[in-house]
Amino acid sequence: MTLIVPVILCGGSGTRLWPRSRAARPKPFLPLVGEETLFEQALARCGDRAGFAAPMVVCGAHHAALVEEQLGAAAAASLVVEPAARNTAAAIALAALRLPADAVMLVCPSDHHIADPAAFAAAARRAAALAADGWLVAFGIEATSPETGYGYIRRGESLGEGAFRVAQFVEKPDLARAEQFLAEGGYSWNGGIFAFGAGTFLAELEAHRPAIARAARAAVAAGHDDGRRFHPGAAEFAAIESESVDYAVMEPTARAAMVPVSMGWSDIGNWQALHQARSRDAAGNSVIGRADLVDCRDVLVESDGPRVSVIGLEGVIVVVDGDEVLVTSAAGAQLVGKLPGASSQ
Amino acid sequence: MTLIVPVILCGGSGTRLWPRSRAARPKPFLPLVGEETLFEQALARCGDRAGFAAPMVVCGAHHAALVEEQLGAAAAASLVVEPAARNTAAAIALAALRLPADAVMLVCPSDHHIADPAAFAAAARRAAALAADGWLVAFGIEATSPETGYGYIRRGESLGEGAFRVAQFVEKPDLARAEQFLAEGGYSWNGGIFAFGAGTFLAELEAHRPAIARAARAAVAAGHDDGRRFHPGAAEFAAIESESVDYAVMEPTARAAMVPVSMGWSDIGNWQALHQARSRDAAGNSVIGRADLVDCRDVLVESDGPRVSVIGLEGVIVVVDGDEVLVTSAAGAQLVGKLPGASSQ
Repeated sequence: MTLIVPVILCGGSGTRLWPRSRAARPKPFLPLVGEETLFEQALARCGDRAGFAAPMVVCGAHHAALVEEQLGAAAAASLVVEPAARNTAAAIALAALRLPADAVMLVCPSDHHIADPAAFAAAARRAAALAADGWLVAFGIEATSPETGYGYIRRGESLGEGAFRVAQFVEKPDLARAEQFLAEGGYSWNGGIFAFGAGTFLAELEAHRPAIARAARAAVAAGHDDGRRFHPGAAEFAAIESESVDYAVMEPTARAAMVPVSMGWSDIGNWQALHQARSRDAAGNSVIGRADLVDCRDVLVESDGPRVSVIGLEGVIVVVDGDEVLVTSAAGAQLVGKLPGASSQ
Repeated sequence: MTLIVPVILCGGSGTRLWPRSRAARPKPFLPLVGEETLFEQALARCGDRAGFAAPMVVCGAHHAALVEEQLGAAAAASLVVEPAARNTAAAIALAALRLPADAVMLVCPSDHHIADPAAFAAAARRAAALAADGWLVAFGIEATSPETGYGYIRRGESLGEGAFRVAQFVEKPDLARAEQFLAEGGYSWNGGIFAFGAGTFLAELEAHRPAIARAARAAVAAGHDDGRRFHPGAAEFAAIESESVDYAVMEPTARAAMVPVSMGWSDIGNWQALHQARSRDAAGNSVIGRADLVDCRDVLVESDGPRVSVIGLEGVIVVVDGDEVLVTSAAGAQLVGKLPGASSQ
């Protein structure tokens, strides 16, 4: 059985769940659903050492201390500390260059919630087996609503039980197309979870984005280790083109595969999505912190201190964090990242 | 021209505008509309010493210091400090007993807002002239909507320009009756503003509530002065029956009169009423403190510190005060006094 190396990506600017998520402590490092942070949950999903090697965490320099604080049982993890943000192609290339060519990487964002970790683990095993055979494998997350905020993956021919070629990666659609995808079937969401052989990935990157591959090699060659942390060369890293792994590798490669998975996935893209992911009472309300709700339905309250009293409201989100108070409708939750407070932090 | 002694009543528990209004600093002592507190505005309305004597302020012991802080230009005011709350009949009786029998008292609650002080002053002059003639005079506030939270005054025969006998005091009506009053005309709101000759008031109180009159005399006889403060005897005061001036005197007396007045009056009975009394922008929003409003209509924000960001809401009230945050609909504003936070302070 292939040993899988979890490669946990900790990016993101933390504006869409402002004011709870801020630049200094973005989404992965907050206990947004349940007691553990999303990062801790990402580690725990890959915590079974019978199937997973110690993880490699790729994070920004500002967050390395947070990562180490939250490693918990994954103390054997290693870190790749990025001196700047250069998107996912660079992050994954650095991780691949630090691994043996025959290792299978399971690339996992750490800012998502997955309600069914067993389904995740089963899909990871299928994806790893395909990756070991030279496929570049995307998780195809069951599309349960016509979301316009995600890319979609159209399923191609079967590669065996629960595995398919990718027929097409589809950019974020408008609502009409998203509804059409759902009606037609055969479309999944692209949640940014991938399995790659490290050598295969680098070969494909070399083939389709040689400049990125070359710059990543230079950054690793100029890097140095500091305990469990690896620091790529700063100037060399800064020179890497900022590009997503989807554009750089998954779309151009002829070896793209996908494993469909239904695992209660949410990218918790805004407060309303978080409200859906949290456990709610019979009236649809969810509360973290001190709150008194009177005659409320589908209300989310989260407070880090002050008591929040809410009367007679439906579908409203109230977040109190330090010196910031956010009050928004479900629809308004999508605009939180554009608020002066969120964008000026 | 009769010299009028303003008798400013500072009662109230401060639950309906919680969390801004609290037991320690209730409604009269807050700058709810404009820069001045409601109490300061009440003093200012009677501040013309050509028509008004120095005011007498009746307040609870816990609020005497606040009253003195906010006297401003009314430094010649005297205070009657109540050791407990005994409703308006007792408060006015104490004030009357501290005044010459021929003084005309203008009894004014200090927890109301009056947008047109000139109209108030004109009505006060008419009411005082009637009071000097032995009438017990209520302000009849123009009823502009079918409110069910106020008592009404039905107008009787004319007593000259802008003055009428009271035909009937009507208890708080249900909505159907309130609508009928508005349709019929001849009904005004009873806002608790009165003009009395001090001697006349005491004679009528003696006639209709002799026990209250006797107990009030005993409390004054057992009292003592302390600078500008007068303290009635505590035990004697506690023995006074708690009764409103409406029940004790205005309803039973045969000498009840009223002066109709349209003066932009609001009792600011809840946050929604306060929102109406405040100046609003073109979208109907009003803000005190730091706030960012996006796509909002008829939203009130008041914060004593934290920034409040509101997105996509209509008719919502957000109040941040110390360790309490209130978020309510306009309709829910009527329930604020029943919140755990408001009722347990």
